[in-house]
Amino acid sequence: MSSMDFENRKAMIEPNDALDIILASAHRLAPVTVELAKIDGYVLAEDIVAGHDVPPFDNSAMDGYAVLTADITGAGEANPVTLKLIEEQPAGKATDMKVIPGTAIKIMTGAPIPAGADVVVPIEKTSLSGGRVDILVALPLRNNVRSAGEDMPKGSVAVTAGTTVTPVIIGLLASLGYATARVRPKPKTAVIGTGNELIPVEEPLTPGKIRDSNSYTLTAQARACGADVTRLGVAGDTKEDVARLVGLALDSADVVVTSGGVSVGDYDFVKDVLAEMGAELQFWGVKQKPGKPLAFWVLGEKLVFGLPGNPVASVLCFEEYVRPALLKMMGRGHLLRPVITAELTHDFKKKPGRQHFVGVRVTATDRHYQATVNGRQGSGILKSLDGADGIAVIPKDVIEMKVGERVEVQMIGLPEDH
Amino acid sequence: MSSMDFENRKAMIEPNDALDIILASAHRLAPVTVELAKIDGYVLAEDIVAGHDVPPFDNSAMDGYAVLTADITGAGEANPVTLKLIEEQPAGKATDMKVIPGTAIKIMTGAPIPAGADVVVPIEKTSLSGGRVDILVALPLRNNVRSAGEDMPKGSVAVTAGTTVTPVIIGLLASLGYATARVRPKPKTAVIGTGNELIPVEEPLTPGKIRDSNSYTLTAQARACGADVTRLGVAGDTKEDVARLVGLALDSADVVVTSGGVSVGDYDFVKDVLAEMGAELQFWGVKQKPGKPLAFWVLGEKLVFGLPGNPVASVLCFEEYVRPALLKMMGRGHLLRPVITAELTHDFKKKPGRQHFVGVRVTATDRHYQATVNGRQGSGILKSLDGADGIAVIPKDVIEMKVGERVEVQMIGLPEDH
Repeated sequence: MSSMDFENRKAMIEPNDALDIILASAHRLAPVTVELAKIDGYVLAEDIVAGHDVPPFDNSAMDGYAVLTADITGAGEANPVTLKLIEEQPAGKATDMKVIPGTAIKIMTGAPIPAGADVVVPIEKTSLSGGRVDILVALPLRNNVRSAGEDMPKGSVAVTAGTTVTPVIIGLLASLGYATARVRPKPKTAVIGTGNELIPVEEPLTPGKIRDSNSYTLTAQARACGADVTRLGVAGDTKEDVARLVGLALDSADVVVTSGGVSVGDYDFVKDVLAEMGAELQFWGVKQKPGKPLAFWVLGEKLVFGLPGNPVASVLCFEEYVRPALLKMMGRGHLLRPVITAELTHDFKKKPGRQHFVGVRVTATDRHYQATVNGRQGSGILKSLDGADGIAVIPKDVIEMKVGERVEVQMIGLPEDH
Repeated sequence: MSSMDFENRKAMIEPNDALDIILASAHRLAPVTVELAKIDGYVLAEDIVAGHDVPPFDNSAMDGYAVLTADITGAGEANPVTLKLIEEQPAGKATDMKVIPGTAIKIMTGAPIPAGADVVVPIEKTSLSGGRVDILVALPLRNNVRSAGEDMPKGSVAVTAGTTVTPVIIGLLASLGYATARVRPKPKTAVIGTGNELIPVEEPLTPGKIRDSNSYTLTAQARACGADVTRLGVAGDTKEDVARLVGLALDSADVVVTSGGVSVGDYDFVKDVLAEMGAELQFWGVKQKPGKPLAFWVLGEKLVFGLPGNPVASVLCFEEYVRPALLKMMGRGHLLRPVITAELTHDFKKKPGRQHFVGVRVTATDRHYQATVNGRQGSGILKSLDGADGIAVIPKDVIEMKVGERVEVQMIGLPEDH
């Protein structure tokens, strides 16, 4: 072990401190303009203001006849009121005709209410013959009339900056004439696997080799966060190969995620390469299990994560540290998963000194949530995370928890608040 | 109103029957092969079987020294056991050397356990000097050894058909050598707005016109389901224009979603065009509010939805009817949102005869969920759905609900079970 390694290991920090350092280094990206058809999932960087009333004019909520309320008082199936049809107004056109007492104008859903009219009688409650229409129902003033500005009055803030664009918000933007909007971009994220023991997925296994899986998993995790992610593949355990891929990543990415290559092993070149490129190591080593060898660098505004090669540690470190950074950069307000309290369904033992992150299945009884460790406790087995609903956080100094004791669980299956 | 219109209106059906008809017409799409890097979110159409043990060989969980348990019994900080270092084995290579009593082989995380060795001592619990290593701790048999096949034994089903591919499952596929897998494709979905009153988003408003928003909202809703969606734009209210866009949509799409153009208005050509193309109308008119004019056609294996032009009705009809169909086609098992029971925070009145779908905000007290209508009750205002957590379902014949009464809420903010 080199003296530098030793110093860094002495400086091993707590998980909460690691997250604080990362979030202090992650900055919201400068706004860009994105067109409406592709804007779902982005976070707005500007307030969306209604430049006109929405809807822009009083319009009909039904296909029917625009008439005067006073004309149809007392109308019914048995005693229809007969009005003169003076116009058939198509959708999308405003008529110049005016509804005066004793007359009606035919109107489609969404069409402007003609001058004079103050109510719309649905077509089903009428009977047309010749140029006359029988009204078979009495209706209150402005029934079936949608008012100008009832959705959003001119000048009002329809959607505030910081909101994530949903399908409904896209509809609001469209109705207000926003063909584009200013949003935070998706962080460009590059994923690199490292390790001589890794071979490509399509190659047959040879003794001592395993297939690269972390680079695929991490790429999918980053995509699930909404990042613009590129999988750069695997760097062999030579310094030149690592330098080539890390350099390529830093050329264009806001965030670089490496997997493997940051333990105390002699074959780990990632930290040397990054130091030579001028990246500043923020920490290396976190008092947690799994994921102890987690490392984090900053190079200008760019973030570099060194994740452990163990597949479970890699998934959990992404979830705990990379994901909140990506969400912050893309402008999201809530960066962490919702946390619930659940009762353990079994005893749990651990050594003191490190906080544990454990994949659990969560079920609900009528009164409580219950958490069950998903697969063998403490294994490095990726399968143990398949189907996990949450990540239980077992505090550093706990050595034993009994069945029924309560534990905090980060719910990976629940939506955060936006 | 034509006689055909009248007949169809007589045949107006219940919401549950409409959903039954739609789901009976929606078929799981034939499997396709997708490469690993793009497979997240697809549903597997084959069982994923382990062709070899995972991990394929016993390997080290730590950087350290592979030794014999018997050699280090009683070792400790105060009484180290000194062993001869006979090899430094890099990751990715299997050594030919064998650990015999009194010797140690240096080993990296993930490297194969050398023959003879039955335990790995972490580097932190050792001290190296010259060709000798002091072991500072006693460890039980196979400590820090990951066993071949402990993740998945050869021949076992690692992931079953019907599972949605998550980042963790991508990692499992990669580790098993699946460079591709068979999955259900994303339904090709085409979205068309109709209506003379609609103008493009970027154009200034003129009297009687409103901007097309539904085609954007529906496109984003379909994308959120995982569909492969194309927004074809807006057909004017001429039969030729409608025929051109609907024809274009049916050329390539599995599912066509139209908005507007299926009320009883005289300017609605969608149903004529579809009839001439040979599409079979399954129903037209559902006893619900909003969304009464919903229509549904089948043309071979293709589905065509006629959604109302009212923006709120359009969003809700997509959610209630189009989304489950898309999910079924892409192979998902659970097609509907999770339903909770919540207490109303206010009185609610409606007319009998139609089931209502109402956007609500849901909050939790210590004992109950509570539901509050989001925005003005019964409005056609898209803004009323912004921030809604769920859709309350008010049964057909209810005319009044009092504060505290319980209502079923479909949770649009919660994940379904996969």
